[in-house]
Amino acid sequence: VRRKWRERAREHLDNLAIPPGSLGDLLDLAEQLAAVKQSLKPSVRKKTVVTMAGDHGVTGEGVSAFPREVTLQMVANFVAGGAAINVLAGVAGARVLVVDMGVAADLDNSIKEKILSCKVDYGTRNMAAGPAMTREQAVQSLETGIEIAGRLAGEGVELLATGDMGIGNTTPSSAILAAITGRSAREVTGRGTGVTGDDLENKIRVIQKALEVNNPDPKDPVDVLAKVGGFEIGGIAGLILGAAYHRVPVVVDGFISSAGALLAKSLAPASVDYMIAGHRSMESGHRYMLEELGLKPLLNLNLRLGEGTGAALAMNLVESAAQVINKMLTFEDAGVSRNTPGAPA
Amino acid sequence: VRRKWRERAREHLDNLAIPPGSLGDLLDLAEQLAAVKQSLKPSVRKKTVVTMAGDHGVTGEGVSAFPREVTLQMVANFVAGGAAINVLAGVAGARVLVVDMGVAADLDNSIKEKILSCKVDYGTRNMAAGPAMTREQAVQSLETGIEIAGRLAGEGVELLATGDMGIGNTTPSSAILAAITGRSAREVTGRGTGVTGDDLENKIRVIQKALEVNNPDPKDPVDVLAKVGGFEIGGIAGLILGAAYHRVPVVVDGFISSAGALLAKSLAPASVDYMIAGHRSMESGHRYMLEELGLKPLLNLNLRLGEGTGAALAMNLVESAAQVINKMLTFEDAGVSRNTPGAPA
Repeated sequence: VRRKWRERAREHLDNLAIPPGSLGDLLDLAEQLAAVKQSLKPSVRKKTVVTMAGDHGVTGEGVSAFPREVTLQMVANFVAGGAAINVLAGVAGARVLVVDMGVAADLDNSIKEKILSCKVDYGTRNMAAGPAMTREQAVQSLETGIEIAGRLAGEGVELLATGDMGIGNTTPSSAILAAITGRSAREVTGRGTGVTGDDLENKIRVIQKALEVNNPDPKDPVDVLAKVGGFEIGGIAGLILGAAYHRVPVVVDGFISSAGALLAKSLAPASVDYMIAGHRSMESGHRYMLEELGLKPLLNLNLRLGEGTGAALAMNLVESAAQVINKMLTFEDAGVSRNTPGAPA
Repeated sequence: VRRKWRERAREHLDNLAIPPGSLGDLLDLAEQLAAVKQSLKPSVRKKTVVTMAGDHGVTGEGVSAFPREVTLQMVANFVAGGAAINVLAGVAGARVLVVDMGVAADLDNSIKEKILSCKVDYGTRNMAAGPAMTREQAVQSLETGIEIAGRLAGEGVELLATGDMGIGNTTPSSAILAAITGRSAREVTGRGTGVTGDDLENKIRVIQKALEVNNPDPKDPVDVLAKVGGFEIGGIAGLILGAAYHRVPVVVDGFISSAGALLAKSLAPASVDYMIAGHRSMESGHRYMLEELGLKPLLNLNLRLGEGTGAALAMNLVESAAQVINKMLTFEDAGVSRNTPGAPA
């Protein structure tokens, strides 16, 4: 079925009144949207960015340049509307839904009213000393994401984007990348929010240690998530799986979101057909994640913030692709002469 | 003055509640907008894409895969609203202003009512046999663009984008690039709308011949425009100069628009400060133009259509950058803890 829709979409796109293929990646994206929505008039008008927050016991090992309480402070900033994701989602015409997947503090009621509270636990445990969470908690975080996607699809959301907030969460994301691909801790580890020099060497050692202590099974993504993951990363993986199940395209943000996408792909390889890579992050290991996912990023703006910012910026390109297939005229309809291959005028 | 605004903008951006620099190229763009508008609250809300159309006598040499009448047909398609630029400008919230700079036909009144008629002549002459236009016509096309920018600035337009339509116009654009940079015809020539093999070799020979026959003076951009340019390319160069004069940032589209930008830079080097490169085109010589302009493109989506499409797609990123500096909270205002460099938590 999906192949049929791809072919029908391509046939239509090939008839648009432009030199063949001259809208480049936008045409590939339009074809993907048509296949996902099983329609030559795919709509992505109603958009939501889901920003999942969680804390990480591994911050006790000094892997981040920011203190742990910043996760909570940023959730408050999201609710106040003053963060990058609020501003960029606003430009994209998208709603921001903040989810507490595992912030290590009780949130004020004034904040709770404006977010989804799905706390699995008060932060993960230190993965350098043992599993970050139990297998039950890993399943719970995945199921939470799946359920949220289902609820949003039920509300008519036509395009999802993933986002994250969690001080320290490039560390589990790097560990997930290493566990799934077999790459070394050094290859997968980057500067995160800005660690350099000795601190970066320490971060690499911590990730190496977490992998040795836990020995996650690369064939079992739930084991990987439980041993070296995070609650918000599990939530993101679940959100992607739920989006795919409900045939909602999902724009994957940067490094942390792509760690979730790797888990989603491991659990259900076909989910990749529903993913759109929003951008290529500055975080050095992101290129390996994109390779593993087989996705080409839409943007490359040297971002390394998370929150869903790169995905939000890319949503406008997804909207553009949808409108290209919805609204542009063909050669015939526009009364434009075709080229005559091999015999230029 | 401009440097002062750049410094003030950077100081503000450095205090936003994000890891330093983590919004990457968006921060550079926000800084540029602040300097151009001389304000820490730059607005780019009111947007216009100016798509300039013109015909080219050199099409008689078989340099394009499409017949010359397509220029006129596409102007009609722009007016009907069925072209890519209509759709993409719509997503960007921008108006499309079509300008007849030199289409080789009289336009129907029904079309004329909806565009600007500034026809310099009925297409250029064949530059492989002599100058494409007179020096007076070159000056006229530049002045027309300057005047249009002034009129739009007067109407309150806050962000401009350039666009082009003209069958055969990659040929003069390549010739302008060669004339200004001294690169060979082979280096600067690409496939345009889709010429390959012998046709591509012919196109290279035609460009080589136009340069030999006319010997344009690289130090005199008006001479380059007159001998190997086009009316719409002169109009684009003028539009950029006028935008700079009125301190309106201008998103430069792909290969043809960048040929106009090269002429604008030659005439007034400071105009580059007002330019934003929308994207990197698939047309092979575009990278040399971007190098010469010293601009880093926002998008790289394998586009090669023109019309202003790449610039329109990038307008949303410019809007995003403006809103980042306008609306995001600082560490202090958001109550978020700063990092402590050299001493991670």
